[in-house]
Amino acid sequence: MQRFVYADNAGTTALSKTALDAMMPYLTEFYGNPSSIYSIGRKSKTAIENSRLKIATAIGAKTEEIYFTGGGSEADNWAIRSVAEKLSKKGRHIISTVIEHHAVLHTLRALEKQGYEVTYLPVNALGQISLDDLKNAIRDDTILITIIMANNEIGTILPIAEISKIAKERGILFHTDAVQAVGHIPIDVSELGVDLLSLAAHKFRGPKGVGALFVKKGIFLPALLTGGGQEKGRRAGTENVAGIVGMAAALEEAAANMDENVKKVTAMRDRLIEGLLKIPFSQLTGDPVNRLPGTASFVFECIEGESLVLALDSKGICASSGSACSSASLDPSHVLLAIGLKHEVAHGSLRLTINEDNTDEDIDYILAELPPIIARLRDMSPLWEDKLNGKY
Amino acid sequence: MQRFVYADNAGTTALSKTALDAMMPYLTEFYGNPSSIYSIGRKSKTAIENSRLKIATAIGAKTEEIYFTGGGSEADNWAIRSVAEKLSKKGRHIISTVIEHHAVLHTLRALEKQGYEVTYLPVNALGQISLDDLKNAIRDDTILITIIMANNEIGTILPIAEISKIAKERGILFHTDAVQAVGHIPIDVSELGVDLLSLAAHKFRGPKGVGALFVKKGIFLPALLTGGGQEKGRRAGTENVAGIVGMAAALEEAAANMDENVKKVTAMRDRLIEGLLKIPFSQLTGDPVNRLPGTASFVFECIEGESLVLALDSKGICASSGSACSSASLDPSHVLLAIGLKHEVAHGSLRLTINEDNTDEDIDYILAELPPIIARLRDMSPLWEDKLNGKY
Repeated sequence: MQRFVYADNAGTTALSKTALDAMMPYLTEFYGNPSSIYSIGRKSKTAIENSRLKIATAIGAKTEEIYFTGGGSEADNWAIRSVAEKLSKKGRHIISTVIEHHAVLHTLRALEKQGYEVTYLPVNALGQISLDDLKNAIRDDTILITIIMANNEIGTILPIAEISKIAKERGILFHTDAVQAVGHIPIDVSELGVDLLSLAAHKFRGPKGVGALFVKKGIFLPALLTGGGQEKGRRAGTENVAGIVGMAAALEEAAANMDENVKKVTAMRDRLIEGLLKIPFSQLTGDPVNRLPGTASFVFECIEGESLVLALDSKGICASSGSACSSASLDPSHVLLAIGLKHEVAHGSLRLTINEDNTDEDIDYILAELPPIIARLRDMSPLWEDKLNGKY
Repeated sequence: MQRFVYADNAGTTALSKTALDAMMPYLTEFYGNPSSIYSIGRKSKTAIENSRLKIATAIGAKTEEIYFTGGGSEADNWAIRSVAEKLSKKGRHIISTVIEHHAVLHTLRALEKQGYEVTYLPVNALGQISLDDLKNAIRDDTILITIIMANNEIGTILPIAEISKIAKERGILFHTDAVQAVGHIPIDVSELGVDLLSLAAHKFRGPKGVGALFVKKGIFLPALLTGGGQEKGRRAGTENVAGIVGMAAALEEAAANMDENVKKVTAMRDRLIEGLLKIPFSQLTGDPVNRLPGTASFVFECIEGESLVLALDSKGICASSGSACSSASLDPSHVLLAIGLKHEVAHGSLRLTINEDNTDEDIDYILAELPPIIARLRDMSPLWEDKLNGKY
């Protein structure tokens, strides 16, 4: 029987019931502007500050270290562009990796056009950087290291605490895009030692259009969006009160159920991986050990990822090939090329990303439906016969 | 009997029922990422494109001229910073006014620090610029004119079509911050002839945290937020689908009822103005004729605006003194000083901003409650006796 199975939670998530319930009063009766001094305004202000506390608590930060933004991309842009601007007299060299999200990558490219120099560290077949490469890349004019915490396409988790230690030893600011990690793995910014960390609500069952940047106390980051005095003058614009409240509720919920969720989701993911690797000429992408609990990512040879996603859709399964953010493009993902896959293999990528909303029945359904789809698509592929004959 | 009267609609508005109803499906079952190619993703994409069409239609634009942002401040920042960056080789001079919103003013100040030069046109007692001043300010290196359509504190509507004509004659791009105007007065961008126009949903009964920038066809504006390919590569970040849908529904509703709303709101506003100007030593601020339908703004001598707002709050009336965005500051509003008010008079400002949600009973209540509050506050003021004796 046809089911609906949403397995693209790295793309976005369904809003949690808890988050929606928390938001509703701020979409209806409590509509005051938090900057207003009358009671309905103060009510909004209190909601925002309570949300700030919840988010800080969930990631081991101080309340005053959390700044709200319009999403993860804005947080990444703000962190990177503002550090670059602020420290441009000290130096113009930035270190990053080849597997960053486009919000980081394209921002770095923009800075390169303005005269900044960026070293993109390579990764190995698992998507891991070498810490020696990092150490060797550091120069006297390095002002920022920005490295993704967990990759959105292959789920590899990078050694953020170790990177942070290296950055600190050399007195360099360290930003991590933790958009895929927050709410899914335990995160404590003080243990990790990061200076700046981006997060996005809609990746952990919060609403779309809201995110946050953690800015370690003592760091004064100039505003990217200037205007009204919101967020201590560092991010202008009337606060998205309902969105902020929803984000905090979702993250509080995720943090409260972290151990249980990680266990449950990891078990489902491992069943997916085990089951789907039985398909011939298939391969897991990303680090098999240091890996997001919900990410099961593969390449299937002689398969075109886009066709696979559409075939899965016709069976009620939502999945992605490459990242949703670049789905409009026909180029194979920069991440899959970076881990050493050939173009034609990278084209056959599939990303199944599950979370605590998924069930064992979802996994059973995917395991039943996916292999015959692969077989059917391969039968239609001119390459497949050559492959079977060892000619390709 | 105590009522609750919300009269701070220039600060923010209650979400319209129509907008909330339109949003709910996208906060619940239709949560797909618009960049995804499976059906639930395409559903979100369609919702966004329908919303773009609705917003375009409401302001006389083409669909492809509307770009979604995280709010009005982001739209202002984007327009101004991107034009400055793009045309920096052509020139570095910008013309604006002294009565812009902080989202424009503080962005211009930031550009001044980067070597741009800004001419801030003065205004007369009504908050109007002189078109001759504008013409005289234009230089060969002028790259942008950015002038507010309707001021948020005093409600003055500026002659945008005339300004636009002057800009066009000289081949200079013209941006208008229309955050207070959109949804409240008829706007047709092609009639007005503007190149760039900012709007914010929560000022016209849409949700907080979402806005748009109109960018006239043929103008290529570089992105302010870089990353994923959303908004044709000009504004990165997963789209706030529910917010965008809510904004479009609210604006469509406002546009459909424009004539009726303008008539109703203007009548209520005029009753407020007529009634409150009976208070001695009171004065209307802003242009009495070219004025937003919902803005009744005043100064009351020997009154401290903050105390007045709090006293009104205790009677259930939400109002503001100066703009909500600067309420944390104790300095008198830059706008009230710009129209020539003395510091001590500007401190006694009150802004009552109503919209179609308000009723005649709301106006009756304000007219009954406000005068005795003013009298009581004045009785407590050390200046008041001197004022009555003509000594002050």
